[in-house]
Amino acid sequence: MRTKSVGGGKRRCPSLSVSSPLSIITQENDDEDPSPQLRKSVIWNRWIIFSQDNGKKASDFKGKSTFNTNPSRNKPCVFCIGHEDECTPEIFRVPYDETNWKIRVVENPNAVLSRDLPVFIDVPEFVGVLDGFGIHDVVIESPVHSDQLLDLSPKEIGEIFVAFTSRIQELVHLESIKYIQVFKNHGEKAGGSMSHSHSQILALPIIPPSVSARLGNMKDYFYQTGKCCICEIQSEDLLIDSSTYFFSLVPFAASFPFEIWIIPRNHSAHFHELDAEMGVDYM
Amino acid sequence: MRTKSVGGGKRRCPSLSVSSPLSIITQENDDEDPSPQLRKSVIWNRWIIFSQDNGKKASDFKGKSTFNTNPSRNKPCVFCIGHEDECTPEIFRVPYDETNWKIRVVENPNAVLSRDLPVFIDVPEFVGVLDGFGIHDVVIESPVHSDQLLDLSPKEIGEIFVAFTSRIQELVHLESIKYIQVFKNHGEKAGGSMSHSHSQILALPIIPPSVSARLGNMKDYFYQTGKCCICEIQSEDLLIDSSTYFFSLVPFAASFPFEIWIIPRNHSAHFHELDAEMGVDYM
Repeated sequence: MRTKSVGGGKRRCPSLSVSSPLSIITQENDDEDPSPQLRKSVIWNRWIIFSQDNGKKASDFKGKSTFNTNPSRNKPCVFCIGHEDECTPEIFRVPYDETNWKIRVVENPNAVLSRDLPVFIDVPEFVGVLDGFGIHDVVIESPVHSDQLLDLSPKEIGEIFVAFTSRIQELVHLESIKYIQVFKNHGEKAGGSMSHSHSQILALPIIPPSVSARLGNMKDYFYQTGKCCICEIQSEDLLIDSSTYFFSLVPFAASFPFEIWIIPRNHSAHFHELDAEMGVDYM
Repeated sequence: MRTKSVGGGKRRCPSLSVSSPLSIITQENDDEDPSPQLRKSVIWNRWIIFSQDNGKKASDFKGKSTFNTNPSRNKPCVFCIGHEDECTPEIFRVPYDETNWKIRVVENPNAVLSRDLPVFIDVPEFVGVLDGFGIHDVVIESPVHSDQLLDLSPKEIGEIFVAFTSRIQELVHLESIKYIQVFKNHGEKAGGSMSHSHSQILALPIIPPSVSARLGNMKDYFYQTGKCCICEIQSEDLLIDSSTYFFSLVPFAASFPFEIWIIPRNHSAHFHELDAEMGVDYM
């Protein structure tokens, strides 16, 4: 999909954060067991990820930057081409097996959940804490440190979306995984810790209650009206652009400035149903 | 209640924001009708306040400061003593009718809802937009511009809490008001637009669905266990301090760093049941 410029040109787009259905809390590693936990608030009916962070001190919350804008020979960026051996294990690359890769999917070096903890399949209703099992990957969007998403061609960005779907198609077969979230924190203000352009995939052993509630709201609307409220996008919503398979808009009841939704034209329940042709059209 | 220092001393406390059950969106006044609106998202089952802001431009979202740190003769602070005539209408002051006031409750100069719009009593279930009726007040916490909350004595801070309860006791009698929220944005990063120490009271014509959901979660817990989950605060929670009427803690499943709850010892459903003695003990 060709996007119109909204609120900024190349390299000047505002910080972008994708709201996650889970809060993530990092804390100093003063505990004997540094394993992450999933903690549930009964009052709010929500799960919070608690992740020990060896590198983070209380003073880091005062706004001191740890953003790696300029990698050097002494402190290289592990997401850059040529530094694959210093990075976390690779899951796959695009193109497959090529030294000159364009995209790499790797284990997240700052994973908030651990893939090494015991797997559980069913969660009792009134449990308050779970071992922090989960799979947290990174999609490195370019081999070049200075490339941002806006510097890539529509075809290249389309390939990133296809990489998301490829990884999701692997993860959905795991019985222990109940929900998968793809997100991107663009810029330091949005919570990004690595300036090398990347997205994240978080595969969870639980369905966040906010997601269940959203599906419940849409079901309620369907039972009352016989219609899908996404298909029924109203004329009050502000259309930005449209293409063969998608359209983009600012929702009438947006909950933050510059909120944009990209919606498939066909009624589709799963992001990983996106194919290669649609991936390119997405841009 | 005497509070222990958590993460900073005098004048160096981190930005404090109280999470509101409603998002507030301000937008440029390019519409013919500048009245605020309450818009409902069917998908998320949440209400968003849309408020036209004459003074705000798109560039303000790029982080440019509009914080009035240093009022001058040319641009005085309307919350300062001696500038009452330049401020919005007063609701009451403490002490009553005295020129040398300590606290003033006034109409919010940047109100996000309008008290002049038609009042509605009942909201149909599937309505998508409502006139933005509501009452948005400011509690000016000191006559002196440079005073922050931490500079005041426990007794003075207790009087501010009693001012909250006095105003809430007036608002609860209005049939059009369904929910009242008291909040304070401390510092520019937390969304504060006026550096003169103040809190806000927002009285709404609807109950935010997130509040209904929270009460529903607590009812579910009660029906399952026969207990109130606030009274049943667990030993996993980290106790900070306690006094005659209150205790403070970091909840086990906190959803943001430095989250603190202050909880009354007696089972109490309403903030405005706080009396003057408890107001002082609160600090």
